[in-house]
Amino acid sequence: MSVQSRAEEELLEKFLDAAARGHVPQVSSLLSHVPSLINQTGSSGWTALMLAARHGQLPVVEELLSRGCDKFSVNSSSQTAYDVSRFWGHRHISILLGGAEPGSLRVLPGSDLVPQENYFSRETLDRLSARRTDTEWMEARQRDEDSVYLLFSSLSPMVSCPEDQGSEGKMKLCRFRYEAVRDLLQEPATVLVFLGVERRKKPPSSSQTQEAGQEPPAWFAVGSDEDAAELLKRCREKSCLFPRSPNRDLLQLSEDEAGVVAQARSVLAWHSRYAFCATCGSSTRPEEAGHKRSCLDSNCRSRRGVHNTCYPRVDPVVIMLVIHPDGNQCLLGRKKIFPAGMFSCLAGFIEPGETMEEAVRRETEEESGVKVGHVQYVSSQPWPMPSSLMLGCLAVATTTDIKVDENEIEEARWFPRQQVIDSLFRGEAPAFVFPPRQTIAHQLIRHWVGINSNL
Amino acid sequence: MSVQSRAEEELLEKFLDAAARGHVPQVSSLLSHVPSLINQTGSSGWTALMLAARHGQLPVVEELLSRGCDKFSVNSSSQTAYDVSRFWGHRHISILLGGAEPGSLRVLPGSDLVPQENYFSRETLDRLSARRTDTEWMEARQRDEDSVYLLFSSLSPMVSCPEDQGSEGKMKLCRFRYEAVRDLLQEPATVLVFLGVERRKKPPSSSQTQEAGQEPPAWFAVGSDEDAAELLKRCREKSCLFPRSPNRDLLQLSEDEAGVVAQARSVLAWHSRYAFCATCGSSTRPEEAGHKRSCLDSNCRSRRGVHNTCYPRVDPVVIMLVIHPDGNQCLLGRKKIFPAGMFSCLAGFIEPGETMEEAVRRETEEESGVKVGHVQYVSSQPWPMPSSLMLGCLAVATTTDIKVDENEIEEARWFPRQQVIDSLFRGEAPAFVFPPRQTIAHQLIRHWVGINSNL
Ligand SMILES: [Zn+2]
Ligand SMILES: [Zn+2]
Repeated sequence: MSVQSRAEEELLEKFLDAAARGHVPQVSSLLSHVPSLINQTGSSGWTALMLAARHGQLPVVEELLSRGCDKFSVNSSSQTAYDVSRFWGHRHISILLGGAEPGSLRVLPGSDLVPQENYFSRETLDRLSARRTDTEWMEARQRDEDSVYLLFSSLSPMVSCPEDQGSEGKMKLCRFRYEAVRDLLQEPATVLVFLGVERRKKPPSSSQTQEAGQEPPAWFAVGSDEDAAELLKRCREKSCLFPRSPNRDLLQLSEDEAGVVAQARSVLAWHSRYAFCATCGSSTRPEEAGHKRSCLDSNCRSRRGVHNTCYPRVDPVVIMLVIHPDGNQCLLGRKKIFPAGMFSCLAGFIEPGETMEEAVRRETEEESGVKVGHVQYVSSQPWPMPSSLMLGCLAVATTTDIKVDENEIEEARWFPRQQVIDSLFRGEAPAFVFPPRQTIAHQLIRHWVGINSNL
Repeated sequence: MSVQSRAEEELLEKFLDAAARGHVPQVSSLLSHVPSLINQTGSSGWTALMLAARHGQLPVVEELLSRGCDKFSVNSSSQTAYDVSRFWGHRHISILLGGAEPGSLRVLPGSDLVPQENYFSRETLDRLSARRTDTEWMEARQRDEDSVYLLFSSLSPMVSCPEDQGSEGKMKLCRFRYEAVRDLLQEPATVLVFLGVERRKKPPSSSQTQEAGQEPPAWFAVGSDEDAAELLKRCREKSCLFPRSPNRDLLQLSEDEAGVVAQARSVLAWHSRYAFCATCGSSTRPEEAGHKRSCLDSNCRSRRGVHNTCYPRVDPVVIMLVIHPDGNQCLLGRKKIFPAGMFSCLAGFIEPGETMEEAVRRETEEESGVKVGHVQYVSSQPWPMPSSLMLGCLAVATTTDIKVDENEIEEARWFPRQQVIDSLFRGEAPAFVFPPRQTIAHQLIRHWVGINSNL
């Protein structure tokens, strides 16, 4: 090591030490002489901002921010200074670094957590559910020339794939006007679902005096049982197609369009599977703009009172990243149908009479033999294959021996944190792969890597 | 004010001030002279422990605890010192006061929160779902003399009501042996559901070599469409009855029995409403010990692959306590069907394609006109009327004007925190009432009162 670099190193450690101790004058003075120190990491891999955040040194954090330091750089555990301040409970620093509304934080502790937005979760439409029974309004919106129609065949939306795009949002939904689908809507097997109206900055008034033309465009989904080729011909859209593998292809949409498809596909799947009354076996017909089906037998029990048989089904699923009691490994499993080398979070349907937390414990023990104590909800994701609601949790294991249920999964393993980080962030020929970023499993793994480490 | 009491008051304020400033010698010395100071509250209504917790004075907290101070006393906002330390992010004090496993906390920040156990949530049975397809094992357990049968008529369990009990757990489930229900099980309209086996301290081995007799008792639910009077006669249980108002009467069970009924009633309600195949209208038959129904038409689409039509339905519902942006009021509404003076949390079904958080925002705005920002999940509760999963959340309002949807609720109002506390804890002829403690609405309100105030 040269004398030059030795001196630089000593200066850096002096600077980092001043930040950790909260010595603002020394921090300022060193930065004035050597501005490049500001984002440098020492032997620990931490920047001055991280160290100040670790030790609750608010004035140093303010000084560093005022001098333009990078608040998004991460340590070897992929934690930002914000993550560090959250972990150690230095709330005023978290607010400064996280940018949460201070008002909201005062009302509800913990509201400074930046919420995770999962794929399929964005709501660009206002569902206006009260309008579903307003047939006059609905018919006017159907015929409105601004209304947008999406076409589905076998639960796949018609899409185009412009070649000049990257992999993000590389598929686009084909949007039709009323004229293009008018004939199709007359077919008896066509199902029409009102999805909502576009959200505007200033929400539309719902007063009766407002004219329909002033309202934002309404969106509809059209499900047809016509042959896909016939449908394409009918709509004169030769460059379009219906993707064959929804589980993979629907992940190519933009966040905005994925959110719309989540609703449309779930409701259409329900129409396709629930055409008959489960209570008496009679036929049913769609009502309320495609959000209800009523039994055609007027004597049926399902016609008296409110029954869930008449409404779309949403299946709640728990999906959990189980963490080893040592805090440094997580439990992942693979199903036989997974691509080679892929491991993911354990998951399963919530059963009747079960809480979310109890379902996490039962499914984890059934699939892997591992017992779970504390469960912490993280975020949720609609998954329209056909109509699940994924409830994503972290969970702390209380035992570590693995015994897989071979009917459910092929293999389960504890993965060391560093291996997970390498696979997520380095990604060069990794020994195993995770599900893509559009899945909540991927997001749970990232979340864990972000919050927990050798702090 | 007498001289005596004036001096005492000054001593108390000196003591509280020493605790807040972290001056351990002074705290010790004052306590040695006047031990009764330890749990006294000053003009602020706070004890020394609360003040030390507020200001992160760990050594003072340790000193007070070692002298036996009461860590469960609450301030005028019903907060313990633990609540105060959590709110201000003093983690080491929370651990000391909350008694959470430090190991679990190290693995997952926030795991020191004491989880809420809601009514209907306790799992006393191990569901052993893998056994549902093991017909040989299942038949042996059915005939086992230790097995427990619960009888349901029109989705109500047969109960007895001993008169010498208080209101807690005043109804008891009638438990039958195989001999008593054997004839009933032969009736074609009887539905049998395997609920699980009793959990034991040491879980039973699932190895094939173990004899059935060594396993813990299995529990079954029997749903019959016989007339209730006939059923009672058949079982020779004249002191028993089937409650007529499940929404009210099922709240009289013990926590243990309520947990069992949550599963049994939800699954039986599904059998009662889903006897026909929704995909083709054919009849179905129960399979997998009452946890599946399969279409009798072997050509039906529902027989190829896995379809949710064949499995019990669980309907996810969001229920939320919406908090005013000022942090000191909460939004409650009442439906026309509520008892006079009752107000509760807003709630609604999650729709297809929606996240939990987005459903909270949509339902709140639809029902009350109030817009919501941050949403925080608190706990969940199965609600077997017939088969909901209540997902309880706190939510922070971003607007305050109320405009109710009169189809949904009759009235909604902002209730000041102090009024809520008076109604919850004082309860003498209050101007309004909350739902009973068995509801998650009640628990959400208590939770809010506990975490948030003029700290
Ligand atoms: Zn019917
Ligand atoms: Zn069928």
